[in-house]
Amino acid sequence: MTDVYVGVVHGVIVDHYPEALIVDVTHAVPPQSIEAGAFALLAAFESFPPDTVHWCVVDPGVGTNRRGIIARTPKGWFVGPDNGLLSFVLDRQPLLGCWVLDRPDHWRHPVSPTFHGRDIFAPTVALLARDADADALGTSTGTPPLRLAPLSGSRLPDGSVRGRVVWIDHFGNAVTTIEATAKGVSTRSRVRIGATLAPVVRTYADRTDEPVVALCGSSGFLELAAPNGDAASLLGLRVGDPVTLHP
Amino acid sequence: MTDVYVGVVHGVIVDHYPEALIVDVTHAVPPQSIEAGAFALLAAFESFPPDTVHWCVVDPGVGTNRRGIIARTPKGWFVGPDNGLLSFVLDRQPLLGCWVLDRPDHWRHPVSPTFHGRDIFAPTVALLARDADADALGTSTGTPPLRLAPLSGSRLPDGSVRGRVVWIDHFGNAVTTIEATAKGVSTRSRVRIGATLAPVVRTYADRTDEPVVALCGSSGFLELAAPNGDAASLLGLRVGDPVTLHP
Amino acid sequence: MTDVYVGVVHGVIVDHYPEALIVDVTHAVPPQSIEAGAFALLAAFESFPPDTVHWCVVDPGVGTNRRGIIARTPKGWFVGPDNGLLSFVLDRQPLLGCWVLDRPDHWRHPVSPTFHGRDIFAPTVALLARDADADALGTSTGTPPLRLAPLSGSRLPDGSVRGRVVWIDHFGNAVTTIEATAKGVSTRSRVRIGATLAPVVRTYADRTDEPVVALCGSSGFLELAAPNGDAASLLGLRVGDPVTLHP
Repeated sequence: MTDVYVGVVHGVIVDHYPEALIVDVTHAVPPQSIEAGAFALLAAFESFPPDTVHWCVVDPGVGTNRRGIIARTPKGWFVGPDNGLLSFVLDRQPLLGCWVLDRPDHWRHPVSPTFHGRDIFAPTVALLARDADADALGTSTGTPPLRLAPLSGSRLPDGSVRGRVVWIDHFGNAVTTIEATAKGVSTRSRVRIGATLAPVVRTYADRTDEPVVALCGSSGFLELAAPNGDAASLLGLRVGDPVTLHP
Repeated sequence: MTDVYVGVVHGVIVDHYPEALIVDVTHAVPPQSIEAGAFALLAAFESFPPDTVHWCVVDPGVGTNRRGIIARTPKGWFVGPDNGLLSFVLDRQPLLGCWVLDRPDHWRHPVSPTFHGRDIFAPTVALLARDADADALGTSTGTPPLRLAPLSGSRLPDGSVRGRVVWIDHFGNAVTTIEATAKGVSTRSRVRIGATLAPVVRTYADRTDEPVVALCGSSGFLELAAPNGDAASLLGLRVGDPVTLHP
Repeated sequence: MTDVYVGVVHGVIVDHYPEALIVDVTHAVPPQSIEAGAFALLAAFESFPPDTVHWCVVDPGVGTNRRGIIARTPKGWFVGPDNGLLSFVLDRQPLLGCWVLDRPDHWRHPVSPTFHGRDIFAPTVALLARDADADALGTSTGTPPLRLAPLSGSRLPDGSVRGRVVWIDHFGNAVTTIEATAKGVSTRSRVRIGATLAPVVRTYADRTDEPVVALCGSSGFLELAAPNGDAASLLGLRVGDPVTLHP
């Protein structure tokens, strides 16, 4: 990271709960991209113990009247701004409870209008992980968290599935919105992106003779990869680019 | 990080003190920039418990005769080269004690002339955090740590305040040397940077109609931001660029 | 990191072993570069306690029939794909035991054919660190790990030593394959890289009048550095570039 913000959030958490076990999932969500943050959460949360408290902050509306919330699911607690960030988690997990953060006595003061991640969400996460009651940190609410449109590609009349690139990873693999298993991907499928028609393979080294292949990635979504290369650079891919699966 | 140096420092610390609680604040200080490192320390240290031992290493003079020191303040212990890195912390906190690191029996050997961060400062931090006496790790000295010129913009005859950009963060916000509260910033203030005159707002989303706004950042310094954008890229800002506040 | 993979691996480890002490060494090995990964391991492993379990994953052949292994040395346990990644560690440490990972009951399921780092190596590392017997996690094998050609420059008839750049660090220093002490480097030595002839110095600030210097880096290898600058940018250096030492 090019700044101290993440370290400072850790500092506040350990100040409230020195025994906290903290894992950084990612701090490279594109700035202000709530959908990319929601996808990162989806790709990560099931690898953590179900009593994990997730600090989820992509917060372009910080300091405005958007709510701060705690959301509880069978697979973890989630704390952050109520702006859609939890959408894809909640597409897969039932909401067991939701609380609005409205107890300033638990916050760090003065509360900066530009950094609730440090001043409100970090203490809340620390106290919740340290076994505080959610009812002590906020007020239970019947208004559920804001939701984005679901991921998952849409099926066209000819049987093909239309989706788009939602994330480009460190290796240049382009992860799409198409859930590979749900959409009947097989090794006879083909994936079109721009002018490229990529065969579907099982793993990166299966077809090193092909410039670009498609496969079921480790989070269950169809992804495009270049064997021993960087698919995103090779094809000039960007988040949002349309992708079509021909099952 | 593109190398193993940070991980190796962690390795040495846990080798000396397996129960150590380690938080990374930043490893992205521009190479050799002592002032940027001093600012990062300032922005971070108050979010940590007061018994924290800070490993502070921006060390272009490593292996020369610059001193290695421990500095104690009411808000934390600081270990690193004596080259000005603690300046802005010491502008805000009194110095309660200073020790020169001169006890090689506590160091990792052989000591590399290019990596005191690993061989001298890491063991010192670990032992100090594990409750060693500073007098066992160094010799108390009356020569205080080297100081850089203080931050804080200077006020001109017409009442305006002159400062400069001191840090550009992950979002492209440009943090300046002007302490917002001390200099009487209000929402009627204006900030000039190059040809741009930015209004002062309370939070990023307050004026999405403006290309660039100024606000009191989370460390108390005036910063320039582009609502839903990257101010540094938009205006071509760099560390050192002059900024004028018209309160 | 620009994705969640590292965080997810941490999640799986703490799910299996909540008390695990985890240190990140580097996640910036150039994609698919087994040799660079092997060098990073070499540069780091001796700074960790000898009972450390190292999760070592640079895995372009993931999902194919390459083996997954545990290797034991007097200076640590190493878990990862058997593709040469342990070569430089094993050039310095004897192999005390090797096990093939063939016990799916200890893995995370379903096993993704593209992410054994999460599904096979992470649980194995966690269980081994938590004191599992290697014999419970795999089958002891007499087939030793795959080896790359050793590092270490080769000496030419005229006494000079030929090597190459193996790593470029965060500061732009170019680390070479030439072991500085073994090859008799002194301050009368000279190092040629392209058209540049660099003097050998003891530390970065020794000769600030020289654009580029060479020195014995903190891992014992000869490196090229630009005093207060970035040697790799200045000279356009890349991994693989030839270097000659004139002792």
